[in-house]
This record gives sequence, C-alpha cells and structure tokens, in this order.
Amino acid sequence: MPKLNIVKIGGAIIEEEAKLLPFLKDFAALKGPKILVHGGGKKATAWAEKLGIPVQIKDGRRITDAATLELITGLYAGQVNKNIVAQLQGMNCNALGLSGADANAIQAVKRPVKAIDYGFVGDVEKINNTWFQHLLEQNISPVCCAITHDKKGQLFNTNADTITAEIGKALAQEFEVKISYCFELPGVMKDLNDPNSLIENINRASYQELLLNNTIAAGMLPKLHNTFDALHAGVNEVAIGATNMINQNIPYTSITL
Amino acid sequence: MPKLNIVKIGGAIIEEEAKLLPFLKDFAALKGPKILVHGGGKKATAWAEKLGIPVQIKDGRRITDAATLELITGLYAGQVNKNIVAQLQGMNCNALGLSGADANAIQAVKRPVKAIDYGFVGDVEKINNTWFQHLLEQNISPVCCAITHDKKGQLFNTNADTITAEIGKALAQEFEVKISYCFELPGVMKDLNDPNSLIENINRASYQELLLNNTIAAGMLPKLHNTFDALHAGVNEVAIGATNMINQNIPYTSITL
Repeated sequence: MPKLNIVKIGGAIIEEEAKLLPFLKDFAALKGPKILVHGGGKKATAWAEKLGIPVQIKDGRRITDAATLELITGLYAGQVNKNIVAQLQGMNCNALGLSGADANAIQAVKRPVKAIDYGFVGDVEKINNTWFQHLLEQNISPVCCAITHDKKGQLFNTNADTITAEIGKALAQEFEVKISYCFELPGVMKDLNDPNSLIENINRASYQELLLNNTIAAGMLPKLHNTFDALHAGVNEVAIGATNMINQNIPYTSITL
Repeated sequence: MPKLNIVKIGGAIIEEEAKLLPFLKDFAALKGPKILVHGGGKKATAWAEKLGIPVQIKDGRRITDAATLELITGLYAGQVNKNIVAQLQGMNCNALGLSGADANAIQAVKRPVKAIDYGFVGDVEKINNTWFQHLLEQNISPVCCAITHDKKGQLFNTNADTITAEIGKALAQEFEVKISYCFELPGVMKDLNDPNSLIENINRASYQELLLNNTIAAGMLPKLHNTFDALHAGVNEVAIGATNMINQNIPYTSITL
C-alpha cells in the first residue's frame, strides 16, 4: 500500500510566522501523498472581542453561536487556510484548501443537545474517501480546516484533532497511514517540567502500564484519547511531537499497536 | 463544443438571504458545466470599522493594506464562500470553493505602483485551465472568490468582474461560454430611472451607435467595459441582468459580437 502522511498543526504555530514557515517548508518537502489539517489560533478570541461577539465557554468548551460560527468560518476556512495554501504553493507544493463543505469532503451532524447545547458544533459522520483519494492521485495536497457541514446548508465548528483522526481512519483502507500531531512539546512527556522525560515509543501494552503507574503527564491524556481508536481502525502509526519533527531526524513519541 | 455557464453575483445579493437562496436554487438547477464567481459584500466595511482597520479609498478604489487583505481573505474566501458552497451542497450541486491560491487556480501579479499604490491588489496573469476543466469533467461546480495569489506566497484582492471575464476567456477554447453578470437592475438601461428602458440586445455595431448617441445610462458603462474584450477573445455571449435572470424566462441584456 502507498504511504500517506496526515499532519495536524495547532493554533499556536499558525500565528507565529517564524515557526509556521519552517514547518510548511518541511511539509512541502515530504515525499508522497500528504494531507495537512490545521486548527484556528488565538485570533478568534481577539477578533470576537473587537467585533463584540461574546465568547461563551462551558466546561472548558467554546459554545459556537451563529455569530461565532460566522467569525471562525472566516478565520479558519479563509484567512488561516488561504495563507497556508498560498505559502505552500510558493514552495511548489500543490495545495488545495478545503472545508468539509467543499466537494462534500467532510459531512457532520450537529452535536445532540444534552446537558449543554454546544451550538453549531458538528460531529464527523462521513469522510468523502473518493474525493481525497482522487486529489492525492493528482499529486494535490489537501489542506483541511476544522469547519464541516451537514449537506443541508449548515456549517459546523469541529475539533481539528478529531477531523485528522477521522480522515486517517477513512483512508486506512487504501493507504499505510501515518498521522503526526504537531504541538509545542517534544511528544508525550512523563513530566511536563522535565524536557528529558519524552516517551519515544508507546504501544498497547506499554500504554496500559503507563496509565496504571500514572506515568503520563495529565495534560497529555486528551492527546492520547483517540489515538488507539484510530490505530484499531487501521491507522499504521500516530506520531506526537514538536512542529519540527516531520521530515527531520529528531525524537518524538511514536504510537503503534 | 459543450456549453459552460459562468455566473457572477455581486455584494448586494450575498448579504440578503431572501435574494441569495432563490438565486442559488436557480444556479443549482442550471444544467451542464457551471462556475460561480462572487464578490464580497458590505460586511467588509462594517467589520473593518469594528476591528479598527481604517478604510482607505483613493479615486473611488479601496486601498488593500495588509490588515485589509487579512480581513477580506477571511470574509470572501471563508465566510461568504463557504456559506455559498454549503447552501449549494444542500441543493445537490457539488460545489467546490476556490481562491486563486487553491490548486493554483488563478495566478496574478501585484498591480504596478504608478500614481497610486493600491496595495495588495492583483491583476490576473494566468488561469489554470487544466484544473477548471478537470473539475467540470467531474461534475464539480467551482465557486470562486475574488482572492488571487502570485505563486510566491502572497495573496491579492482582485476585481470579481475581471476574474469572471478572465476565466471565460481562458475556457473559451474548450467550451461555448456564456457569462452572466447578475446585479440589481434588469440589464443595461437607456435611463436608470425608467425600468422600461432595458436594452435587450447589443452587438458590436449597435454598441457603437448607443455610445455615439449617448443612449446608455452612465453607470452602465463600466459593466460594458471588458465585455467586448471577452467576446473578441472567444466568449460566446455576455448576459447582464437581474439576479433572477438565470434559468428563468425573464428579459435581460444579451451582448454578442
């Protein structure tokens, strides 16, 4: 099976050109089929304040009302996405920006209202495999933002980590998929205060051990949450590490079954 | 040659859902290959004010500084574009939103600084024919916003009417192209105050006559400016009329050679 790299970058890197440009150079230089998924960035909060859109957080999660959705659609699918695409094009990587609505790439359903109504938040329902495969065959690199739709005219805010995992799972039938989650740390750490505490390899057995012994820094647990789910669904490897880990020979956390 | 409809809508219709949805229904129902090009809308001015970005107009033209470019990239390529794409997907039209940077669809060069520096304004240099043709063959309808790029990492603000004409000219080799410019009037009027003064047909000869006799309302002249240029370059017909003229049997101005 051909290899496919799916790389996710978060908000912090997007707003620092000094970090973003070297990362994009590494991504552009990656050989073979590849997909980039990006989050939003802190500008959403700054713009919301200036535009007089109140930021509502419940249980640590942003509530996406109509005005917030409009704003982040502009920021994520427009400003951030097109800047990344233009930079990659300048590096001779044939990038194509996508929201979930474009060519019906990622269909979602509104998160059901239980204790909390998260507003226009979508849970991924269906990845358009055929479309992604078709683009990759044309040597085009999709650049996906965290906006999805319901195929009935409604856009949604969706978690970028989840989108990454769902694309990986959907394409695992046709590709040997490696997902790389890039963030501000060298990988999964035993102790967030000790830069030398990187765990370089995790598998099903050692993960249980790490959990039992409480050896993983608490902030790392959400990052690991869906990883094994993705691996069980056919993803080959999940890498968690710094933004400069792709295409460079530096240590990161490699997770396999 | 297969027929291709290229339809352009302006800012006024985009912000009125009561007008936009029926228009999109008509567009979705158009048979055969089709492309939609959209302008921005008045929200750019309102958001710029709130975000504290000064609007600079020189000789009736907006100066696009870095902050303005960031804002309109978000609005045009993000908020407006993805809303249109999501609505069309809900109407079973397989729409794909594009800025000029996406798959290098529309390459431009920064407008040379002469008396006025317009800032990040791009003049269209090259349309990626192959890409547009490829999408149309897959039964995908491109939805283009008025943002282009220079293939070196820089995005630009570009006039949407010009983008429409340039796409039409570029694809005239492979298609019988009809361009429809939709706006708030029934078409080219002899007298803007007389709704019965629509000119239904214009060709090269009658255009000269209308100009000589000063029979065209002054506000109409810019709309006609590039029309004959496009027709000479191979476009088959240019229609100028109301937003409900496409796919409905109502009068408009048809311009041919």
